[in-house]
Amino acid sequence: MRGYIIVLAAVALACQPPAESPEQAAAAEQAHADSARAAIEAGNAQYLRHINAGHADSAAMLFTADGMIMPPDVPGTAGTDSIAARFKTTLVPGGVLTLTRQNLSVSGDMALARGTWAYAAPAQGNTPAINLSGKYLEHWHFTGGQWKIAEDIWNNDAPAPQAPAPPARRN
Amino acid sequence: MRGYIIVLAAVALACQPPAESPEQAAAAEQAHADSARAAIEAGNAQYLRHINAGHADSAAMLFTADGMIMPPDVPGTAGTDSIAARFKTTLVPGGVLTLTRQNLSVSGDMALARGTWAYAAPAQGNTPAINLSGKYLEHWHFTGGQWKIAEDIWNNDAPAPQAPAPPARRN
Repeated sequence: MRGYIIVLAAVALACQPPAESPEQAAAAEQAHADSARAAIEAGNAQYLRHINAGHADSAAMLFTADGMIMPPDVPGTAGTDSIAARFKTTLVPGGVLTLTRQNLSVSGDMALARGTWAYAAPAQGNTPAINLSGKYLEHWHFTGGQWKIAEDIWNNDAPAPQAPAPPARRN
Repeated sequence: MRGYIIVLAAVALACQPPAESPEQAAAAEQAHADSARAAIEAGNAQYLRHINAGHADSAAMLFTADGMIMPPDVPGTAGTDSIAARFKTTLVPGGVLTLTRQNLSVSGDMALARGTWAYAAPAQGNTPAINLSGKYLEHWHFTGGQWKIAEDIWNNDAPAPQAPAPPARRN
């Protein structure tokens, strides 16, 4: 009898933990996707709060260290400091950004959010009111235990109004 | 002795196949990513061939059934037929699209390609030459055993030249 017990114990030790069943794997994947979705929704809400408060540095902290923004009609830029600098030159006091999510795909440490955006700011002095809208695609990456924005591109639904040509000089 | 053998056989039958080692899992993931990269490079080359031959329908077939394009300065559009129709209205005879890949992230059935693009077409009659460039982000999805484009967004590096205003009427 003791022999059986030793053999059983030895085999039990040698035996790997049972492989995850397909149901368990699917449940784990669903739980991961759900937690990713919640984290990305929260990150998005934070992003809007920072942008709409004009806090460029805080907004840039939501990107990965080598994160990249690709705004329309200008070259893209990468890295937290560059992103913050770019936000500082484009955010307008009183401007309000809104985002409408249309899709969120999650796979492992990658997530992809798609939606539409609108940006409105009142006229100020010689600067006319701003009313822009368009679409965006945002790559979120799970790194260091956090979901951060790795790549962010957006464009307009109509050509952005261009600055009026300076008045002709009268010689 | 026979007792031991029976016990061993019973335990071996009850025992699940050993879980994949971390090294095996990493190797399987690498092989998947490599095959995804090769398929996406091939898909991309096909896309360029179709676009540059003006074959809008063939280019649209590289998208998932509910795939979406989000071009700059116009609303986006979804579905193979709508994508083909949009390509038909925007492709210019003699126009040449080039893409320069800058990054490709793969996770499971999702891949994300980022890069820059340029589109050039010679002047034709009253239509001036076109020289546009910008950046793109493309979501590829593995579906039905194939990698297809699910979401594709791009924008310009500079405001696109707007059509000149029609000449003033002389009354």
